[in-house]
Amino acid sequence: MIPENIQRFVQAFSRLPSIGPRQATRLAFRLIASGKNHIATLSQALAGLAQVQICSQCFFVHTHPHTTLCSICSDPHRAQDMFMIIEKETDLISIERTGKYAGKYLVLGELTKSGVLEDIHKTRLSVLKHIIESLPTKQAQEIIIALNPNTYGDLHTNLLIKELTTYTKKITRLGRGIPTGGEIEFADEDTLGHSLERRI
Amino acid sequence: MIPENIQRFVQAFSRLPSIGPRQATRLAFRLIASGKNHIATLSQALAGLAQVQICSQCFFVHTHPHTTLCSICSDPHRAQDMFMIIEKETDLISIERTGKYAGKYLVLGELTKSGVLEDIHKTRLSVLKHIIESLPTKQAQEIIIALNPNTYGDLHTNLLIKELTTYTKKITRLGRGIPTGGEIEFADEDTLGHSLERRI
Repeated sequence: MIPENIQRFVQAFSRLPSIGPRQATRLAFRLIASGKNHIATLSQALAGLAQVQICSQCFFVHTHPHTTLCSICSDPHRAQDMFMIIEKETDLISIERTGKYAGKYLVLGELTKSGVLEDIHKTRLSVLKHIIESLPTKQAQEIIIALNPNTYGDLHTNLLIKELTTYTKKITRLGRGIPTGGEIEFADEDTLGHSLERRI
Repeated sequence: MIPENIQRFVQAFSRLPSIGPRQATRLAFRLIASGKNHIATLSQALAGLAQVQICSQCFFVHTHPHTTLCSICSDPHRAQDMFMIIEKETDLISIERTGKYAGKYLVLGELTKSGVLEDIHKTRLSVLKHIIESLPTKQAQEIIIALNPNTYGDLHTNLLIKELTTYTKKITRLGRGIPTGGEIEFADEDTLGHSLERRI
């Protein structure tokens, strides 16, 4: 009763994160109602992602045809001996939007709650170590570990500090305190404690 | 910094229901990581929806190339003078899965909370009226109004009863009571009242 094209769509899309079979089915009917042109636009936008490549140094994305490096890693004006380790590409985008960081990155890959580094994280870390070893100084000036400030982020931060301590002069983390626009009344004790210890 | 292909994807997909710009961005990076083959599979599954057509009688979907009717409307073994009005295609699928209904349908289209019938609903209702007028008896045997049993569904049910009362011998709604697997303790008063009045 359900056309095969819809079944194929539901099967493919319900495997995506945060889309279950029900949501995929509903989405299919909405898309059909939205018309052939809209479907073609979406399908082309999706197919276009296949052209996106992963940077061989920091594992962010790029679409440069003749290089393996993203625009950040190939930018000679950025500090070559300063690295920020972030979990996801979207974290990198958020940091870049501040305009306050001019070093390089390592996209570590999404962390699990297992509390250990997975193979993908280890591979990427060894790429970073290799880059650092190729520096004239053989050491980074600073590595900023910018994981989310929660239990799992802190756990992984400690693992990374252990891994990288001989590779850099300085290891730092993002400062903690009350977020701009936040309210003292609703800040948790830990946050408030940090904001007192590191007052500006 | 964000490749144009990703921006185009985010722009197109963040307009879909229940996918915002953040979720679309995250989805883009996950899809890129999942590889070109997976992206191609999804893109083709999506493009395939453009082949799906809308039935000119009940407004459900079909992919028959040489007809405007879905498999239900073109099935001569189904009662031709019995109609069930449902809101969404997924409701039709749920009813069909019971195997207990052998009449025809009208997919009314998603109801708003405005409490009035929108143009799309009116157009579809007039198609149903036209089909009923073309019957040898010029009247339906029964119309089942199967909208969700909540305030808005009940409101629209009353509107539909008014619209259709001269077109059918009988108008019914889906029975109410305690759902199978439910618990009496947690049933609301209205449900429990119905289950008492219509005990089986």
